[in-house]
Amino acid sequence: MSKYHLHKIRVRYGETDQMGFVYYGNYSLYLEEARTEMLRSRGFSYKALEESGIWMPVVKLEINYKKPAVYDELIAIKTKIEGNIDRKICFSSEVLNEKEVLLCTAKVHLVFLKHPEGKIVTCPSSIRDLLEVYQ
Amino acid sequence: MSKYHLHKIRVRYGETDQMGFVYYGNYSLYLEEARTEMLRSRGFSYKALEESGIWMPVVKLEINYKKPAVYDELIAIKTKIEGNIDRKICFSSEVLNEKEVLLCTAKVHLVFLKHPEGKIVTCPSSIRDLLEVYQ
Amino acid sequence: MSKYHLHKIRVRYGETDQMGFVYYGNYSLYLEEARTEMLRSRGFSYKALEESGIWMPVVKLEINYKKPAVYDELIAIKTKIEGNIDRKICFSSEVLNEKEVLLCTAKVHLVFLKHPEGKIVTCPSSIRDLLEVYQ
Amino acid sequence: MSKYHLHKIRVRYGETDQMGFVYYGNYSLYLEEARTEMLRSRGFSYKALEESGIWMPVVKLEINYKKPAVYDELIAIKTKIEGNIDRKICFSSEVLNEKEVLLCTAKVHLVFLKHPEGKIVTCPSSIRDLLEVYQ
Repeated sequence: MSKYHLHKIRVRYGETDQMGFVYYGNYSLYLEEARTEMLRSRGFSYKALEESGIWMPVVKLEINYKKPAVYDELIAIKTKIEGNIDRKICFSSEVLNEKEVLLCTAKVHLVFLKHPEGKIVTCPSSIRDLLEVYQ
Repeated sequence: MSKYHLHKIRVRYGETDQMGFVYYGNYSLYLEEARTEMLRSRGFSYKALEESGIWMPVVKLEINYKKPAVYDELIAIKTKIEGNIDRKICFSSEVLNEKEVLLCTAKVHLVFLKHPEGKIVTCPSSIRDLLEVYQ
Repeated sequence: MSKYHLHKIRVRYGETDQMGFVYYGNYSLYLEEARTEMLRSRGFSYKALEESGIWMPVVKLEINYKKPAVYDELIAIKTKIEGNIDRKICFSSEVLNEKEVLLCTAKVHLVFLKHPEGKIVTCPSSIRDLLEVYQ
Repeated sequence: MSKYHLHKIRVRYGETDQMGFVYYGNYSLYLEEARTEMLRSRGFSYKALEESGIWMPVVKLEINYKKPAVYDELIAIKTKIEGNIDRKICFSSEVLNEKEVLLCTAKVHLVFLKHPEGKIVTCPSSIRDLLEVYQ
C-alpha cells in the first residue's frame, strides 16, 4: 500500500466471542470507523453528507481473515481507495495488530444514494477531489 | 409471576464474549425481542405503532445478573407489565435457561413519545386495554 | 438453488441503524444462526463439535447487498454448501424478505481447527456425510 | 462528581438504530470501554487481571436515559467508583454529549471471580489502592 489512511482502534471485550477472538462480523464496525475517519482526515464529514441528502449504503463486503484480533489489542487499519470513484467507491483495508501482523484484508464497496429519491448518483466531484490522495 | 408472556430465544455465538458467556449488554436485544413478541401476542405491532407516530424509547434499564447464559442455549424470557401504564410502561422480565435456572431479572421502562413533535404522551387506551392481561 | 436449508429470522430493532435498515455487519449474525440451524437439522450440534475440540473459525466472508432488510421483517435464509468439504467448508446463502425479494447473497468460508493445537484439519467424515444432502 | 475519570468515545453508525439514536443496549460497550480505560489510567490492565485468574463479571446494570446520543458525536464518559471496593465494585458514570448535555447516568456493579474455581473473592488490595483516587 502506497498512500493510505491509518486509524487505530482498541478491541472491546464485548466485540470478542467465546473463541477468545473478535467475532467475524464485528470487523464491519472497525471498517466503518476507519472509513469515517479517513473522510474526516480530509475535512469531510460522512454525517454532514448524509444530512445533505447523500447516503452511502454498503453494496458489497469482502473480508479475508488471516489471524484473529484479541481483546484490548490496539489494531491498526490501513485504508486506501481502490479503483475509480464514480457511482461506487471501494475502500480497501488491511488490519494489523500491535506487532504489525496482518490480521485481515477487507474491501467494502459503497454507492452514493440520493435520499429520499433512492436513486444512485455519481460521487460529488468535491468529495472525489478530496479523496484523490488516497487513490 | 402470575400472568406473563413467554418467549424463547436461542443464544448466538456472536452474542457471547471471551468469558464464554453472553455479553452483559446483549440481554438488551433479548429483552427487546421479548417485548415486541409480547405486543404481537396481543395482535399489536410495535412497528405499526412507530409508523403511526408513537415511538417508545427506553428511559430506564435495570438488569440483575445471577447466572450466565451460554452459547446455543434456548433461554426463556417471562415478561409481564409492572405497575400502571400511563406515560410510562415498565416491562419486568425473568430470563431462565433450559433447566429453568434463573439467569437474570430485568426491568425496562419506556415512554410514549409523539413523533415528530418529541412530546411524551399518555399510552393510547387501545394499547393499554390489550396489555391489561399481562398486568 | 436445488437442495438448501431454510431458516427464518425476525429482524430486531437493535440490528437496524439510522438509515432505517439492518446494519451491514449484522448479517453476520443471521448467517451464523442459519449455519448452526442447518447443522442442527442434520442432528449435529456446532456447540458439541467445539466441545470435542474442533473449532470452525471464519476465514472468508463475502456479502453482496441488493435490497435492505427492515425492522420486524421475517427474513428467510436459504443456505447450501458450495464445493467440496475438506479442510474448508463454504456456506452459500441467499437472504430473502417476506415478499421473496432477494436482499443479499453471501458466502462464508470456514476451516476446521483442532483446538488447542491450533492446527487446520480435514472435516471429520461423519460430518461430511451428514452435510452431503446440502451440497 | 468530584474526582472522576474522563473518557471520550465517538459514536459509530452501527451503534445507532432506526430511531436515529444510539441503541439502548450499546451503552454497555461504552461503559465497558470507560471502565477499562479508567483502570489503564492507573497503570492497571483488565486483560492482565483476567489472565492472572481474576474475572470481573457484571452482576448489576442500571442506566437512566435522559437524552439520546447520536451518530458521530464525541461523547464524554465521566466515571468514578461508588462505595467500598470489597467483593464488589460499583462504577458510576455520567455520559455527556459535546455540548455537555447529560445523556444518561449509569451504575455497573461487578464482582471479583476467581477463575477457574468460580468463587467470588475480595478485590486484591493492590487494585483497591490504585483505584482509591476515583472513590
